[in-house]
This record gives sequence, C-alpha cells and structure tokens, in this order.
Amino acid sequence: MQLEQFSTLDHERMERTGFPEVIFCPGKTDEQIASIAVALAARSPVVLASRASNSSYQAVRTLLPDAVYHATARIIAWERAALPKVGLAAVVSAGTSDGPVAAEAAVSLDLMGNNVTQIHDVGVAGLHRVLRHCEALRTANVIVAVAGMDGALPAVIAGLTDKPVIATPTSVGYGAAFQGLAALLAMLNACPGGVAVVNIDNGFGAACIASRINHAACN
Amino acid sequence: MQLEQFSTLDHERMERTGFPEVIFCPGKTDEQIASIAVALAARSPVVLASRASNSSYQAVRTLLPDAVYHATARIIAWERAALPKVGLAAVVSAGTSDGPVAAEAAVSLDLMGNNVTQIHDVGVAGLHRVLRHCEALRTANVIVAVAGMDGALPAVIAGLTDKPVIATPTSVGYGAAFQGLAALLAMLNACPGGVAVVNIDNGFGAACIASRINHAACN
Amino acid sequence: MQLEQFSTLDHERMERTGFPEVIFCPGKTDEQIASIAVALAARSPVVLASRASNSSYQAVRTLLPDAVYHATARIIAWERAALPKVGLAAVVSAGTSDGPVAAEAAVSLDLMGNNVTQIHDVGVAGLHRVLRHCEALRTANVIVAVAGMDGALPAVIAGLTDKPVIATPTSVGYGAAFQGLAALLAMLNACPGGVAVVNIDNGFGAACIASRINHAACN
Amino acid sequence: MQLEQFSTLDHERMERTGFPEVIFCPGKTDEQIASIAVALAARSPVVLASRASNSSYQAVRTLLPDAVYHATARIIAWERAALPKVGLAAVVSAGTSDGPVAAEAAVSLDLMGNNVTQIHDVGVAGLHRVLRHCEALRTANVIVAVAGMDGALPAVIAGLTDKPVIATPTSVGYGAAFQGLAALLAMLNACPGGVAVVNIDNGFGAACIASRINHAACN
Amino acid sequence: MQLEQFSTLDHERMERTGFPEVIFCPGKTDEQIASIAVALAARSPVVLASRASNSSYQAVRTLLPDAVYHATARIIAWERAALPKVGLAAVVSAGTSDGPVAAEAAVSLDLMGNNVTQIHDVGVAGLHRVLRHCEALRTANVIVAVAGMDGALPAVIAGLTDKPVIATPTSVGYGAAFQGLAALLAMLNACPGGVAVVNIDNGFGAACIASRINHAACN
Amino acid sequence: MQLEQFSTLDHERMERTGFPEVIFCPGKTDEQIASIAVALAARSPVVLASRASNSSYQAVRTLLPDAVYHATARIIAWERAALPKVGLAAVVSAGTSDGPVAAEAAVSLDLMGNNVTQIHDVGVAGLHRVLRHCEALRTANVIVAVAGMDGALPAVIAGLTDKPVIATPTSVGYGAAFQGLAALLAMLNACPGGVAVVNIDNGFGAACIASRINHAACN
Amino acid sequence: MQLEQFSTLDHERMERTGFPEVIFCPGKTDEQIASIAVALAARSPVVLASRASNSSYQAVRTLLPDAVYHATARIIAWERAALPKVGLAAVVSAGTSDGPVAAEAAVSLDLMGNNVTQIHDVGVAGLHRVLRHCEALRTANVIVAVAGMDGALPAVIAGLTDKPVIATPTSVGYGAAFQGLAALLAMLNACPGGVAVVNIDNGFGAACIASRINHAACN
Amino acid sequence: MQLEQFSTLDHERMERTGFPEVIFCPGKTDEQIASIAVALAARSPVVLASRASNSSYQAVRTLLPDAVYHATARIIAWERAALPKVGLAAVVSAGTSDGPVAAEAAVSLDLMGNNVTQIHDVGVAGLHRVLRHCEALRTANVIVAVAGMDGALPAVIAGLTDKPVIATPTSVGYGAAFQGLAALLAMLNACPGGVAVVNIDNGFGAACIASRINHAACN
Repeated sequence: MQLEQFSTLDHERMERTGFPEVIFCPGKTDEQIASIAVALAARSPVVLASRASNSSYQAVRTLLPDAVYHATARIIAWERAALPKVGLAAVVSAGTSDGPVAAEAAVSLDLMGNNVTQIHDVGVAGLHRVLRHCEALRTANVIVAVAGMDGALPAVIAGLTDKPVIATPTSVGYGAAFQGLAALLAMLNACPGGVAVVNIDNGFGAACIASRINHAACN
Repeated sequence: MQLEQFSTLDHERMERTGFPEVIFCPGKTDEQIASIAVALAARSPVVLASRASNSSYQAVRTLLPDAVYHATARIIAWERAALPKVGLAAVVSAGTSDGPVAAEAAVSLDLMGNNVTQIHDVGVAGLHRVLRHCEALRTANVIVAVAGMDGALPAVIAGLTDKPVIATPTSVGYGAAFQGLAALLAMLNACPGGVAVVNIDNGFGAACIASRINHAACN
Repeated sequence: MQLEQFSTLDHERMERTGFPEVIFCPGKTDEQIASIAVALAARSPVVLASRASNSSYQAVRTLLPDAVYHATARIIAWERAALPKVGLAAVVSAGTSDGPVAAEAAVSLDLMGNNVTQIHDVGVAGLHRVLRHCEALRTANVIVAVAGMDGALPAVIAGLTDKPVIATPTSVGYGAAFQGLAALLAMLNACPGGVAVVNIDNGFGAACIASRINHAACN
Repeated sequence: MQLEQFSTLDHERMERTGFPEVIFCPGKTDEQIASIAVALAARSPVVLASRASNSSYQAVRTLLPDAVYHATARIIAWERAALPKVGLAAVVSAGTSDGPVAAEAAVSLDLMGNNVTQIHDVGVAGLHRVLRHCEALRTANVIVAVAGMDGALPAVIAGLTDKPVIATPTSVGYGAAFQGLAALLAMLNACPGGVAVVNIDNGFGAACIASRINHAACN
Repeated sequence: MQLEQFSTLDHERMERTGFPEVIFCPGKTDEQIASIAVALAARSPVVLASRASNSSYQAVRTLLPDAVYHATARIIAWERAALPKVGLAAVVSAGTSDGPVAAEAAVSLDLMGNNVTQIHDVGVAGLHRVLRHCEALRTANVIVAVAGMDGALPAVIAGLTDKPVIATPTSVGYGAAFQGLAALLAMLNACPGGVAVVNIDNGFGAACIASRINHAACN
Repeated sequence: MQLEQFSTLDHERMERTGFPEVIFCPGKTDEQIASIAVALAARSPVVLASRASNSSYQAVRTLLPDAVYHATARIIAWERAALPKVGLAAVVSAGTSDGPVAAEAAVSLDLMGNNVTQIHDVGVAGLHRVLRHCEALRTANVIVAVAGMDGALPAVIAGLTDKPVIATPTSVGYGAAFQGLAALLAMLNACPGGVAVVNIDNGFGAACIASRINHAACN
Repeated sequence: MQLEQFSTLDHERMERTGFPEVIFCPGKTDEQIASIAVALAARSPVVLASRASNSSYQAVRTLLPDAVYHATARIIAWERAALPKVGLAAVVSAGTSDGPVAAEAAVSLDLMGNNVTQIHDVGVAGLHRVLRHCEALRTANVIVAVAGMDGALPAVIAGLTDKPVIATPTSVGYGAAFQGLAALLAMLNACPGGVAVVNIDNGFGAACIASRINHAACN
Repeated sequence: MQLEQFSTLDHERMERTGFPEVIFCPGKTDEQIASIAVALAARSPVVLASRASNSSYQAVRTLLPDAVYHATARIIAWERAALPKVGLAAVVSAGTSDGPVAAEAAVSLDLMGNNVTQIHDVGVAGLHRVLRHCEALRTANVIVAVAGMDGALPAVIAGLTDKPVIATPTSVGYGAAFQGLAALLAMLNACPGGVAVVNIDNGFGAACIASRINHAACN
C-alpha cells in the first residue's frame, strides 16, 4: 500500500511546535511504521516512534539502518544528527516498577534536545530518599515525577521545590489501582500547587511538555 | 408509631462487639431517632447517634435531657456514666477542611472509652509539619489519618511509624476528587504497608475499628 | 477557637515553593478563613483565598481592610505590595461560560507576579477565532487553555504552537459531560504533545504551574 | 445443529429497513456463521458478516464460494449482484491507527449501495490537513468521522460544514483513553451542532445510519 | 462589561454550517445572554438560546421585544422572519416525562426550518402504541427518538423503518438510570442498525443533526 | 393541554400484564398527573401513582376525591374496589432508614392484590434478628429484601430459605455507597442462588415482580 | 491436600434452600473441583459445577464416571437420579451469540427439576419474532430473558405477559457495551414492571431464582 | 545493570515500621528482583517478595539458595532466622476460590512474626459455618476476612465479635463483580462497625496492618 492510502504526513510540525511528527505505533502494521519513518526521515532531523515493538524496529531498520531501539522505553529513534542539549530536566520515579515509563520520558527528553538527570525509586514509603535530592531537583527547569499505586510522589516534590512538576501516573499496581486511575486521580488532586498531569503511562507525553518548558526556560 | 413498627433493637450488641447499637440518623425522622435513643438508653451505658442534625438533637433532648450535641462532629451523645478511657488513639488530619470528619472520629473514640490525641492540618504540602509529630504518633496504639483531595497523608504516616493506620478519606475537594473517590483509591493503594481504609467521611467507622484495636492493645 | 485548634500554618512555603500557603475555603468557616488570613498576612507579602464566598470575604475584610474580592474568580486577595510582574502567561477560554475558571487562573497569575493576557470564547466550533491569535500565543511562555464540554481547545492550541499548554477542563456542559469528566479525559488524551492537565475547574491550580513555568523562563 | 436450534432469521428486514439482516460474528461458532450466511444468501441480495475472523471466512467460503473477505475491515461479504451506488458518503479518519474502523465503515457503505470517498489521517494535531478538504466534505450527503484518543475531529468537521457528521470513536489510545471512552464522551459533548455518535469501534454502525441518510438524500 | 470582554462572536457560522451561532445559557449571566442575543440579532435571521431560564428571557426581551420564550423547551427564540420549512422530521417520545426534551428538539427543528411531527408517550411497555405509527414514521426523512430509563425506543423504531434514527437519551429515571447513563449506553448498543446518539437531554443537539439530515434530503 | 398532547394511554395493559398502567410522577406536572389519573380511573379498577409529592396528590384529589396518599411510600392510590388479596409476600428491611422503600413495596403489593407481611430492621449487624424469622419467611411465596449500605441481607435470606428473593437496594448510606451502587453490586453478586435484583430504591418494581410471582403461585 | 484444608461443605443446603451446594469452578484447581464433587455426591442427589472447563470435567470424571459435561453451558453435572420435572420455565434469548448463557440457564433449570422450553434469537431488531411467541410465553410460570448489547428484550416481554421475567444480561457486544454493563443497566431500568435482574452472564443464577419461582407455583 | 541504576533501597524501614522493605515483583525483571533480594538479605533478617512468579523464584534461588517459594501465595521468602511468633491473627475465607489471597495473608503474617490460625470456606451462603467459629475468632487479636463476590463475610464477622476486622476483597466472581469492585464497595459500607478495608486481592497488605495490630496487642 502507498503511504497516501493510510497517512497524511505533517511535515510542518517542527516549525509550528518545535519537534517533528512522531509515530504512535499501536494499531499500525510494521510496514506502515517503516514506511512513515522513512518518509519523515527524508525531511526531519529526528524520527521518534513510541510504544514500538522489536518487530516494528526490525522493519524500520531495514529501511533506516541507523535507527536505534531503546527496549525498556519501547522507542525507535533515528537521528540525522543529535539535537543540541539545553537546560536541565529531571525524571524521578517512585519505584523500580515505574522504570519503563521513566525511561520513555528520559529517552524522549534526550531526543528532543534536553539535558536529563534521572533519580530512581524514591517513593513516599521511605521519604528520606527523596528529601535527600531536594537541592538537586531545584536546579532543574522542570521535574517529571513518575509514580503508580497511590501516586503521592509528585505532590511531595511540588511541596518541596519551586519548579513545575509534570506528574506521570503509571499502571503499576492492581485491584483498586484500576490500571493507573488511582494514581491519576491522586495527582489531579495534589494538594500543593505546581503540578499538572499527563495520561497514564505516558512518559512520552510528559517529555513533550517538559521539553517545551525547558526550552522556554533556555530562550 | 410504635418502635416495633420500624425498628428491631439489638440489645446484645455490646456483649458481642464491645459497644452498643448506634443510631445512623439519615433517613430516619426526628421522632424515630428520639424513640430509638430512649429505648437504647434504657439498657445501654451510652447512646451515640451519628450524622445527626440539630433538629434531631432537639427531639432527643426532650426525652433524654442529659443528651449532648457535638455540632462539628454531628453526634448526639448520652452517657449514663462515661466509659473508662484506656490506651491511646491518635487522630491526625491533613487540612482544616477535614476537621468535621476528624472531630467525628475523635468524639466517637472518646465515647467508646479511649484516650485520644488530635493533630490538625499537617498535610503533605508541608511535610515538616507531620515529621515533627513522628515520635508522638509512635506512642499511640493506632492512628486515624484523615485526608481529602490526594489522600496522601496516611501513606506518609505509615512509612514513618510501626502502628496500624486507619485511613479515612474525606469528600474535601472538587472536580476529579469525585467526592472523596480520589482519596479513597489513593489510600487503598498506599505504597507502605500498615494501612486499611474506611468509607469516605466515615469518622465514626474509623473510630469503631480504632477503638477495637486500642482495646485489644490494652487487654 | 484558637488557630492552633484547627490549623498548622506553613510559613516556609514561600521559600520552598515560591508562593505562600493559600487558603482553600470550602469546608472552613468564615471565622477560620479570616483567622488564617490574618495569620498569613503577618508573615507573607500576599494572601490568596480560593473558592471564597462573599460572606467569607466580609469576615476577612473586617480583619484585613485592604483585602479585595474578585467575585467572578471567587478569590479574596490581600497584597502588602504587589509582586513584580515578569514574563507572559496567556489564558485562553473556549466559551463565555468558561469565564469564571479563566478568571480564577488570570487573577491568580497576576497575584503570583506574572504578566497575563486573556483571550475569550475561541472554541473549536469556529476555528478561525483561535487561528487568528496564533502569533500572539507564541509570544507567551505558557498557555492556560480552559474548556468544558468536548475539551478540544488545548489540543488544537498545542498543535499550533511550541509553548507548554496547561489544559484546564471545566464542568460546563451537562449529561455525558459528567461535570467535566469528558473534557478532562479528552485533554489527557490530546493527540498533539505539549499538553498537561489540572483538575476540573481548577483555574487556581493551572495558575500555580503556569507561574512556575513562566518564572523558570524568566530566570 | 440445525439452524432453528440457535437462530430465527428475519427475512423481512430488507423490506422494513432497507438492508438485510447482518451477521455479528463474535460469540458464534464458524459453523453457525456459515450456516446463517447460506440461509440469508438464499433470500437476500447481499450478505454481510461483521467482526469476522479469517477462520469464519474459510467456513463461509466452503458454502458460498463467491464470498469475499475484507481483512482490515474484518468483513465477510457476499453479493448476488452489487447494489447500485447512490449519492456520496465521506469517511474521514484522524490517524493511521484508526484505519481498520474507517475501513469497516467504508466497506459497509459500499456494500449498502453508497458512493464512498475516504480521507486518511487528518487529525487535529495538524489542522491544515483537514481544512484542505473542507470543500470536498461539503459535497457529501453525510460524513463519517473516525477518531480515537481525544476524539476531537468530528467537532472540528461539524464546525466547518453543514452536513450531518456521524462521529465514530475508536479504542485507539491507552490509559485514560479507557478503550475509547474518552473519545466517546468528547464526541457526545461536541460543541458544534450536527454531530451524533455511534458505539466505540463501530464502523459498521456508522455505515448503517450514514447509508440511511445518504439514501434519504437521494430519494 | 463590553461584549468583547467575554465573547468572540462567530458571525460566519450560518454560511459554514447552515444555522447561526446559538447561545448556550448555563454559566452565563442574564446580562451576557441578552448582550450576545442583541449582537447576533443584528446579523442573523434567527437567534436561539437554549437551556434558558425565564429570568434570562426577561433580560433578552428588554432588548429584543419580539423574542419568544418556549417554557417547556426552555428556549428563547427571536426570528427576523421565520425560515422556510422543508421536508419532514418526526420527534417521538417514550413517556410523558420525556416531554421537555422532545419539546426542545421540536421547537429547535421548527426554528431551523423543518416541518415537524410529534408523537408522544409510545414507549416499549405498550408496543402497540408505536407499531400503530410505523407508516407515518416512514414518511419522515429523519426520526428523533427520545427516551429515558431503559432507552429501548430508538432500537425498536430503527428495526421498523428505513430512516435514520437520532436517539436522544433523557435523565428520566432514578437509581441505576444514573441520570441518563443507562439510556445512553443502551442506545449506543442498539441492536438494529440505523441509530446514532446525542448527549443526554440534548434535544437541541438532536435537532441540529436531524435538521442537517432533513435539509440534505430536500436539496 | 389536552391529554393527547402529552400522553398515549395503554388501557389494555391490565389484560396483558395483570395490572393497569401506572403513573411515574417525576418529570410530569401536577396537572398532567391528575389528568392521566382521571383517564385511567375511567377504565381501570385501580390507579397507582408512584414517587408522588403531596402537591400532586392535592391535584389528583380535586378530580378523584377518593384517592388516598401514602406519604412514607410516596404513592397516590385510587381503588374502585380493592383487588382480592391472594397468597403471601414478605417485605423485609435491613434498617429503619430503608423504611420508605419497604413501604413503597408493601403498599404496592397490597394494591396489586397480595397478602403482605412486613419485618423491619433485621440487618446483618445483628444476625439473630433475621434468623428468628426464618420459618415465617418460608411460608411466603416470595420475599422482597430491602437493604442499603452493604446490601448483605438478601444473600443471607436466600441462604436460609427456598423462596425467590427480590433484592431491593436502597440509597441509604454515603460516600462509597455511591447512592446505592454498592448495595446494588453486592446483591447482583450474592453468593447463594435465588436472588434477583431491581433498581435502587425501586420498591414499586420489587412489588411488580413479587406480585407476578405470588399470583403465579396462587393459580 | 485434604478437603478440610480448603473447603467447608454445606450439606444442609438442600434442606434449607431446595438445591444442594453448587461448585463455582473459577479459582479452584481441577483437583479441588473433583474432590468437592465426590464429597457432595456422597450426600446429594445431584452435583452441579458451573463455569467448568473440559479439563476440570476430566478430573471429575475420573472420580465420578457418570458425570456429564455440557460444553456450551460449561456445566459438569452428575445425577444419582434425575429430579422430577415440574411446571414450566421459558428461556428466551435475543441473539445467537447469547446462546451459551441461555444454555447455562436451561441446563441448570433442567437439573433443578423444571420443565424447560427454549426460544432462540428473537431480539428487538425484528419484533415480530417475539410477538409470535407471546401466547406460549404466557403458559410458563417464569421467563428467563437473555440479552446482550442494548438489553431491550426483557422489557418488551414484560410488557406483553403477566409472568415474572428474570432478565439476564450478557457480555455480548463491544465498546460501550462495557462487557454487559449497558445491558445490565437497561434491564434494571426496564419501563414495564415485572422484571428483576441477575448478574451479567449469570445463566446459572437466573435458573436458581426461576426454579424457586416455578417450584413455588407448583406447590 | 547496577542496583543503583534502578533502585534506592530503604534499609531503615525495619527500624521505622517494624518490618523491612518488601519486593513488589510485577513490573520488575527477574534479574532486578534477584539483585534487590540479595541486597536486602545482606542487612535484613527476612526478605519477602510478593506476587512473585516461579521464574523470579528461580532467579532469586540462584543467589539466595535458602529462599523458599510459596506457590499458592505467590511469595518468595528468605529468613536468616524466623522472627519469634507472637499473639494470634485469624485468617478467614468465604470460599475455596479465595484461597490464594488468604494464603498470601497467612504466609505474610507468619513471616512477620505472628501466630496464625486459618478457617476456610465459611461464606454467608451457609451461615452456620462461620457461627460455629465465633468463639475461636474472639480469641484472636485481629481477624483478616477474605471474600469475593458479595463481600458480605467481614460484616457478618464484625457483628459477631469485638475484634478489629481487616476486610480483604478478592477478584473472585465475574460480570458485575467488576474484578472485586463489588466486594470492595460492600466492605467499605459494612453496616457493623469494626471493619477496615485493604486493596482488592491484597492479602499481603491485610497481613501488614494485621501484624501491626497483633504486635500492638502483644506489647
């Protein structure tokens, strides 16, 4: 099938929004993904495919041999040349199980041209772990806080710093976690100001807005 | 209407469960409430009516002149003689708006024969406020932690102490707080162990189990 | 009642987070609100009480005669001296009915020391209305986009600019709007990157993170 | 098993409603599907089985060798002779991942005797893509607009044309997309008039009402 | 307040969509409603304000003395000259309690230039009532079917006719009707094809798409 | 307004279903209710209006002076001559607050021609109360079990008897009772067989099916 | 493992409730199921295991060679001697896909000692199909009406007969059917009286109460 | 990968909370689990990994040969020396299918240093089964009551004893059980006082709070 039969590329997106169109893989065939990736690579400095399987990566790599697969983050990346890195964005996770979502955020931020620092497994069950990083967090322009279950970490961080916190709920948990709904609602109701929320497990989306914030801070 | 036409009293409840039958006021007329209160007072050392309006209190007082109304807690209480107070239960609230639910818990605990200590307005937006009370909390046999919105306080307390935490979500908040659902779910998913949850705004229910725990610890 | 009997003020919040503790009015008595306001005014340059009724304002004004009431935004404000205004934050609303939430965001941003521009009633039913403002929006450091019903406006704006968009769902609508849930979910699933979401009707919360972003951009 | 043991065919449906009974495949065995298909083919000009697996198709083909399988649309079709095509119905999709639902709508519309035009991947992240098709859309008698995630496309189209828009939410997305619920609710709350909604992923249902509209316009 | 301070009128909507911008009253002050009405009346042949209170009507009438208030339908209408009526749209209700929503649909359809026929109280509890109207329904170009509770009427009608059915759930009912959610879901899952659904209680929205369908059928 | 303008009476319902059409009052004006009541009384032996206010009763009484108002049950009743009473139906309630729903069931059963026995306030908090009535319950042909909050009573009764149990959830409770949803779900999941459920607070609906069962047992 | 280590059999259930304890298979190992079946068979005339896999059947058959597996109904049955059949219960299904749930109801009713008649695939999309069976349905003592999607069939049947209708929602459907929730809610809100509802896909539960009703009618 | 790259251990948790950090396995790789287990074993007397697969156990056993796998409870346990057992905690389950959750609670309680007694399969369908254990239950300091479906068991137990009841809903059931939501809500609304609730299927969480209660009672 020709690209025109399933897709209408938006080649002006980088000019309008600062980053080119991204490929959301679920629901697309490997062939469609590879075909879109090639078309984007022809006109964009970087191609990012999110929620990608290894099988999609194999299809892309055939056409774009320089493409890279970040397995934990489930991202296929191709860069003509890496974008220059600016400012600083912090990615903090509450538990080891939140790792893949945090990785998606961190890899995306890197590809979007941001310096990134990561802090792992500092959830509220042991508060001293995050308290110890307070000063470091205050040096970032934006903090991506990733948590499942009770989703309490972003509120705690927002009460300790003056930086914007992008709360990223994960589907870690079970039962009344309702696949991340509990964390999502908790984050939307964070008592301290300074928190805004992205979709459940949406490390990529957290990176998008965090990158816009970090770039706004570096102009 | 005769009492038998709408009610079947359970006079053995104190022997079975340690506290006499309680009057849940919503859905009952003032006359029904007063009539049940008198019948219970004839055979119980204490009568407790929860979620009571002032108008119900006026009806009760006509028949039981010694009855007392705790307005913030919305409790009508009558005691033949106060039960002896044992042990210690702590009631901690996250914000001033959680006050009425905390008061319902504290007044109920007192009527059930527990020593009670209360700590107000120490939510996670300013963590140092609860950290300062850690040692005090560890001296109680049970901690009732009351919070609305993000419901993060019980998890934080459970990570700091070794005592059972009865998490009490409140309907404080709006929008995606969904009348306390967000706090309820967050508490059910508290990362640290040691937390169990009662119904939204159920300060009385929190007191019931906390009193059982405190009495078990004082046997 | 003494302040200590219902409240534990967090006077260090401005140092930690850049803005002093704020009074969330629902669930507090007018007397509690006034009493907290006075205590905060003694040590903070600005006092902000959100979701305040006129009756609460009257109680505050008795003790703080310089307090001002923003009726549409439902904010009581008291400033020892206005904070200096920096940068630029845009507040855009989809419909006239979203006005009160947009006002809450705009008044809060002003009190937090941000230059603010407001654009009214440019929802997606008539797309040319927002398209006409594209260039203006790109000059802000952050865009607060307020919408009820289908909640489509923030996604449209995020696809047209490179600035962070704080999506603010409102409870405008009925039936399957479910008091803002439809708009909330739509915004969490915005196709373009660059969007993060706050609680339904939470103009104040949108202002909090927008102010942090704008201040990060002005450092 | 005999057909009578599991099915009661409705051979008059074409006279009453303009199209014969259709086979909804899930929950039926391949043998049941094949057996119903043959019985319908004996008295109807066209047989349509929706949400069909390839394995069901193999069973049908054994008995109806002229049957065709539209794999992307998951439709088994058999036509004694194609119905004459009338008018024009447009099928527009927001993203490549919405392709299968759009295909189900387009194939169904074709089988029901409608001229069909398809436009792919013109979601609101790049508005110029759909704006470019406005005039074409206005020549159709009805527009089927297919979108997942934020479900914003039908509202945008309804604000740009004077034709009825059949909004078709898809389950594309994750997390707070809640398997298409977010798109469904957004579409039910579309600000512009002129939108009605069918079930999530129900390309066939969208085709049914669109065909009735297109045929009403061609009488 | 000046109109520009809260509203951006869309005077081209009639050209684009066939009917001018409409005023959704909830969340607007009477003064805002009256001020918008006057501004629209200056350039549109008809002004329609939905979900309007009598008090809003009094405000409008002061400025537009010819405005009319349809109390059951809660519509304020002003017509420079009535639009010519074309074709035929039927509005069918399941019960007397669904009357206000049916009235909103019927009045709106009339104002939008459609011939309208109404059938009252023919729900599925007594099927013969709707069966008796089958032939009449088949003469309309579109049928608006209004029902609360079990929401079964639109499915029954769609199985009896070949015309598009716009299902309009109402909030009539209680308990597990969940303010119209039960009817909404039932309608979205209508077994017969030919049904699409609008928001709960949205008689106006049903009229919008029905009018587009009826006009498409009359070109 | 003439009756024909808002209602289509179903005078054959008694022949088909054993009881005449009933008036569901919410959403109808007092005038509509009175007008329907008179029309039904002309051809039915009994008229029953459910969820009726006293004001509706006053309107009905003007036209039907023999009509009676059951205030707790919120039922307006008019009987040309009482239907003969057959068999036995038991109505059991878990708490005094469930009284109005139980009354609606009992009054309706009486009007439908059933002998009725009522048992009050025998919820599972004091199991001995219901155990004491086991033998009496086994003499009924059907048991209506009314309960709010945890909704556990019908399951307990079904495990103790061999009679059909019509579980009737009530909206008694608060918080996570979700207006009766908790009781509804508990009843739908009753471990013992022999339970079926009606809508929340639907004492009338419970009576309808219980009356059909009792009459089937008396044929 | 010994039976006592995981199970406490209730051998008196037949005396109390008219049918012996039944084995709910999910969550039990094949060994547990077989072991319970043997223990029940030692003291009951019939053993019924619901939602059983073929693998569980194989385990049971080893110990109870006369056990039978009803594959569509997913029931393992063992009868020392078939219970005598009384009265009549009708099982009606809306579509062929509802067949397995209807089979579970019919097989269970048979094992519980009821005469059973089954009617297949007579949903509301073709009303004449069910109308044709009206007289037959009125000869049963109880009607089990099984439907998925819009769940409209039980309401239609209840409006046409005077017998109790046990509405049985199925999970047939997709999207906004929400695994049977739409049908469940529609059935709980059935406009005609005479309907009560069991859990989604619970053909067994429908049979339990229908059998109690049919037996009450045959005493 | 080094432990520091995905985890921040909280070695002080035993001092603060009475039990060391626990490994929640879902979302972690076998390698991560094994690596964390070894690090914890170096400084803790006991290591507990919950919701563990056999494959994770194999990875742990390679590094910690003394580790044990409790298959039903899905727990990996390693003890340097078993903690001394104190007091008494009872674990009661409603049905055999609730066995795995009850096992998780019992094994955890044992590892945490509690004497444990277990009672199986005593749900409310046969009340005499639990009544027979009343005296035994009253000798425990805390009762963990595990139930799915209607979740009625904890309420019944709380009405019969004076000990704290930790209600543990399970996902046993189907349809409107909504994976344990029905049981969860029923438990949150338990009529008798003395009940608090943990997350669905959270046998481990029930053990955590029960152990704190039992230890408080043994001080």
